[in-house]
Amino acid sequence: MTTVKLWSDAEVDADRRIKAVFDDIRTVRKSDFVNNFWRGLCNHPALLERTWGALKEVMVKESALDPLTKEFIYIAVSTANGCSYCVHSHTAAAKAKGMTEGQHEDLLAVIGMAMQTNGLVTSLQIPVDKEFLV
Amino acid sequence: MTTVKLWSDAEVDADRRIKAVFDDIRTVRKSDFVNNFWRGLCNHPALLERTWGALKEVMVKESALDPLTKEFIYIAVSTANGCSYCVHSHTAAAKAKGMTEGQHEDLLAVIGMAMQTNGLVTSLQIPVDKEFLV
Amino acid sequence: MTTVKLWSDAEVDADRRIKAVFDDIRTVRKSDFVNNFWRGLCNHPALLERTWGALKEVMVKESALDPLTKEFIYIAVSTANGCSYCVHSHTAAAKAKGMTEGQHEDLLAVIGMAMQTNGLVTSLQIPVDKEFLV
Amino acid sequence: MTTVKLWSDAEVDADRRIKAVFDDIRTVRKSDFVNNFWRGLCNHPALLERTWGALKEVMVKESALDPLTKEFIYIAVSTANGCSYCVHSHTAAAKAKGMTEGQHEDLLAVIGMAMQTNGLVTSLQIPVDKEFLV
Amino acid sequence: MTTVKLWSDAEVDADRRIKAVFDDIRTVRKSDFVNNFWRGLCNHPALLERTWGALKEVMVKESALDPLTKEFIYIAVSTANGCSYCVHSHTAAAKAKGMTEGQHEDLLAVIGMAMQTNGLVTSLQIPVDKEFLV
Amino acid sequence: MTTVKLWSDAEVDADRRIKAVFDDIRTVRKSDFVNNFWRGLCNHPALLERTWGALKEVMVKESALDPLTKEFIYIAVSTANGCSYCVHSHTAAAKAKGMTEGQHEDLLAVIGMAMQTNGLVTSLQIPVDKEFLV
Repeated sequence: MTTVKLWSDAEVDADRRIKAVFDDIRTVRKSDFVNNFWRGLCNHPALLERTWGALKEVMVKESALDPLTKEFIYIAVSTANGCSYCVHSHTAAAKAKGMTEGQHEDLLAVIGMAMQTNGLVTSLQIPVDKEFLV
Repeated sequence: MTTVKLWSDAEVDADRRIKAVFDDIRTVRKSDFVNNFWRGLCNHPALLERTWGALKEVMVKESALDPLTKEFIYIAVSTANGCSYCVHSHTAAAKAKGMTEGQHEDLLAVIGMAMQTNGLVTSLQIPVDKEFLV
Repeated sequence: MTTVKLWSDAEVDADRRIKAVFDDIRTVRKSDFVNNFWRGLCNHPALLERTWGALKEVMVKESALDPLTKEFIYIAVSTANGCSYCVHSHTAAAKAKGMTEGQHEDLLAVIGMAMQTNGLVTSLQIPVDKEFLV
Repeated sequence: MTTVKLWSDAEVDADRRIKAVFDDIRTVRKSDFVNNFWRGLCNHPALLERTWGALKEVMVKESALDPLTKEFIYIAVSTANGCSYCVHSHTAAAKAKGMTEGQHEDLLAVIGMAMQTNGLVTSLQIPVDKEFLV
Repeated sequence: MTTVKLWSDAEVDADRRIKAVFDDIRTVRKSDFVNNFWRGLCNHPALLERTWGALKEVMVKESALDPLTKEFIYIAVSTANGCSYCVHSHTAAAKAKGMTEGQHEDLLAVIGMAMQTNGLVTSLQIPVDKEFLV
Repeated sequence: MTTVKLWSDAEVDADRRIKAVFDDIRTVRKSDFVNNFWRGLCNHPALLERTWGALKEVMVKESALDPLTKEFIYIAVSTANGCSYCVHSHTAAAKAKGMTEGQHEDLLAVIGMAMQTNGLVTSLQIPVDKEFLV
């Protein structure tokens, strides 16, 4: 149901530039499995390289937030944007990184709460309190 | 610029039912400041009570996720929904709860990354990998 | 703060094609006041004519839903899309058409409830029950 | 395709806390059928209880707006948020509550009209008329 | 999985008003194929007529932007709104109108870039520069 | 009204890493004016560098789509996401790149049309025609 072809492993292996990215994905993730998102991006090599480069920088590289917290933020954005694939893939990633049942419940509860108050605030057109300004 | 009146402290104090909620907000938050969102909800007492009750349950009560992580999720949803007031109020809350510059940068970077891949995935209509299914 | 010029009454009156639309808006609405949305569309006469024609057909012409119910739907969509101007203008329209305080509270409560369950359903990726299919 | 398990009736019946909520859903709705949304929430009992409690308060309890009008608002929000499941379930609910073909056409027409003018207003960045301010 | 019935060719042919619209779609598009969107709108004849009339005016009639550029804009909006059907149908239309692989890559890259900076700008609540004002 | 400080030219000049990015922005754009978005990102140097690097790659580098078409796509996404700042800045950019009145009207008309049919399609839950599948 994609709008572009999903590349098979054989097709990836036959293209040196694409193969280099897939090799890096497999090395960084310590897994042979490469999910469909990357197989769709194969049609556009420069976009594939840039997107993987950015994702590695933001999601893999050690930084101020731990990897699981980053997944919570990713799921929150993807939910609000209604991106079904992203919700699936990042919930799977969160589980792989140790998300507990209790954390999942909290994540869902906060998303629901934020959605609800976003709607109330926008309907009411509440002005920003001066106390919140930088 | 609201679509309803924002209640002043004097108006709040003159209404027993509303005052009870404001007293609880002030006690729970250990602060006299009550922000405009609640002042707008005063026009609808039952909605005010339910919303504060739910927020206290989800955001204040001790649970699996720490309070700062909950704020990150709240900001992520509010950003994707374009709720200006919510971004302001919850960024202020995150700072009050100790968000560092590095954590803020990470939060922004993950939000930007998620928005970007949400767009790519939706444009490409990537199907969910069977590996992600429960 | 618009991206196009808002036309004054003098500018409208000097353009026969635009003036015809404004005359019709004033006649249909039985009011001299024409809000900024139409003054922005003046820059694009064909778009102005088509948009007013469609709005008159959908929102003004007698049909299965009463005018106030249509405003509730309009506000609901505009809130979910975060369109500040549309929330303001259609809340004003709803009040002008007799929306009571109780109806406003219900409208807000249902919007908040829908936003919340939209978020939960999308996070959980709930499949459609076969009972709901046509 | 959910990110959590959907509970069967047998699993529900084996858990006293969950069963109490399902019993109430069946009593209030006067129907044995409980849709997938609630079966997904079973994984998180407190969230299940709070969500059903709020839904009963907002959507079932007699109030200023009639039940069918509330469904129109729910469908409008769910459409703008792109929540496929919610559109399905609340359109089914609206039909069960007597929505006519003519009302459905009006609902669709107003949603389409609001989406269109939301887009125009946001592209044009129309400022709020002072006449609309409270 | 629709919320309304999709009309077959036989049903279309049996209804003079609907058939007139389908005949026009086939003539204008020089193709016998009429896609599901129009078959769903058949349930609401006036909405069908208005929607096809507007689409012909905006997307088919010769105007300042060429037909392929209009498809790019359509895909961009549909992606941001998460409308899966619209992404599919307008990507197919763009390909039929000659979209190259390179143009598709650019389209995807710009959508991704815009999504990302939309998120950053909203999180940061950047004020509009006076240089951008009309 | 930002959630972070906007850096002045003096502050930019005092930071070698930030200054290098601003110098590049000014060189590439052949203009001294640097808009607020970049001044907000100064608080997070790595994010500033990556975002400017990606924007230069996607929006400035010669590629399959001309610069003005890219701006149309950018405005379309930003409108659907309700990003006021992005609509302002990219409409200004489109005008600077020669967008005519007629093109602006077409852009608005297509955005409005897409928003409208997005809403109709989602309300109707139209299934993708097999003819649209790759």
